[in-house]
Amino acid sequence: MRSDAAPARVWVPEVPACGALIDPGPDARHYLERVCRAREGESVTLTDGRGRVAVARVTRDGGRLALAVGRVEDLPAPAPRVLLCGAPEGERADWMVEKLAELGVTTLIPVDTARARWERFERRAQRFERLALAALRQSLGAHRMEIGRPTPLGEACAALPAGGTRWLAEPSGARADARRAALPGWYGVVGPAAGLDEAERASCIACGFAPISLADSRLRTETAALCMAALWAACADRGAEVAGETGRGA
Amino acid sequence: MRSDAAPARVWVPEVPACGALIDPGPDARHYLERVCRAREGESVTLTDGRGRVAVARVTRDGGRLALAVGRVEDLPAPAPRVLLCGAPEGERADWMVEKLAELGVTTLIPVDTARARWERFERRAQRFERLALAALRQSLGAHRMEIGRPTPLGEACAALPAGGTRWLAEPSGARADARRAALPGWYGVVGPAAGLDEAERASCIACGFAPISLADSRLRTETAALCMAALWAACADRGAEVAGETGRGA
Repeated sequence: MRSDAAPARVWVPEVPACGALIDPGPDARHYLERVCRAREGESVTLTDGRGRVAVARVTRDGGRLALAVGRVEDLPAPAPRVLLCGAPEGERADWMVEKLAELGVTTLIPVDTARARWERFERRAQRFERLALAALRQSLGAHRMEIGRPTPLGEACAALPAGGTRWLAEPSGARADARRAALPGWYGVVGPAAGLDEAERASCIACGFAPISLADSRLRTETAALCMAALWAACADRGAEVAGETGRGA
Repeated sequence: MRSDAAPARVWVPEVPACGALIDPGPDARHYLERVCRAREGESVTLTDGRGRVAVARVTRDGGRLALAVGRVEDLPAPAPRVLLCGAPEGERADWMVEKLAELGVTTLIPVDTARARWERFERRAQRFERLALAALRQSLGAHRMEIGRPTPLGEACAALPAGGTRWLAEPSGARADARRAALPGWYGVVGPAAGLDEAERASCIACGFAPISLADSRLRTETAALCMAALWAACADRGAEVAGETGRGA
């Protein structure tokens, strides 16, 4: 581990109590020993991906790498950033999942639409979960992106809590203007490769989703999803500032 | 081709004159016949990726698909969006190239740094070019992303034209604030997976690059590059509006 690098982050199903000495399990051990080259005495961070994190020190227990757990902390959940996303083409969902998780999307809901369904979701669910966990580790996050099961678009829209900023990705929409955002909470709909049909589009708009354009060019499903997540990430935690500016009459 | 879809776009090395009847070549023919299922009489768009576009009609010439070229137009080059990017890990450069091209980055300059070089660039250059062309087709663009050869970071910075908004991706930087952008021209530096060293960072800052943070989480090289391109895309062509607002004392 480079001395200027942030402590390695390890996912554990449950964060143990302060003072515990734990075996992090084969995957985390491999990651710490082979990928991070963590040495005795170095600090690592444990997280359960549900907001609990602990500082731990690398040590040995019977010759094997073990972790001595120190301070444990519970971090508040971030404001929701929920993406309802149609099926991308081919294998493109893999890296989309990884990137959305890295960028701090809190919930990805795969949506089935008239023109495309998430056909191969069941086979890929475990892989998606692994990608989301790897992204948590990489991004030094404490909250793991939740991945829903494929849900019909209308049903997914109806299940969202009220409020928040709601964007429907659409090439002919208005420019995305994060400045006017009414925080907290971001909700987005991105259609599948073949697009939403007219009825689906109308029903999203009826649910409060504003058609917005993310770029001058036509974007693939996964690129539009990533753009939305990037704009949300760039605006996160600026709610007060933005609201304040709006309050001054902008 | 769905009737509500935009005309298919085809890259050709040179856009022929209005009135010409051309054989678009095997790749474009395959794309039009097999991927787009283009039928006789349908319109397609030709572009050379350097700003020249033509409307063409699908027809037959001796039984084979041919294109009858109509109106030819030269489109102005967009404001530069130039990304100097360190080497991402493994195969991650492939999709980074595709996504940056889709999002309208005008020039990608792979930069070699103290901690990482674009070692396998030569073997992959042709693949990168194909990905950039496919993205041009997909995004319905008229200007193909240029991909430079790997260049030492300092040399690449020194070769940039003066002016424009200059961002250095850095987790500890200020929030990216596209609202304050002095257009035209966006220039960005994203370090390799292992980061820039202190001397490189200082030299970027001396070249006018402002350290900016793109997200709360730590991002991989290719994710940071994509975030920057997404923010540029979201702000493109709003130069006048932004400048006007700044002029009103914001």
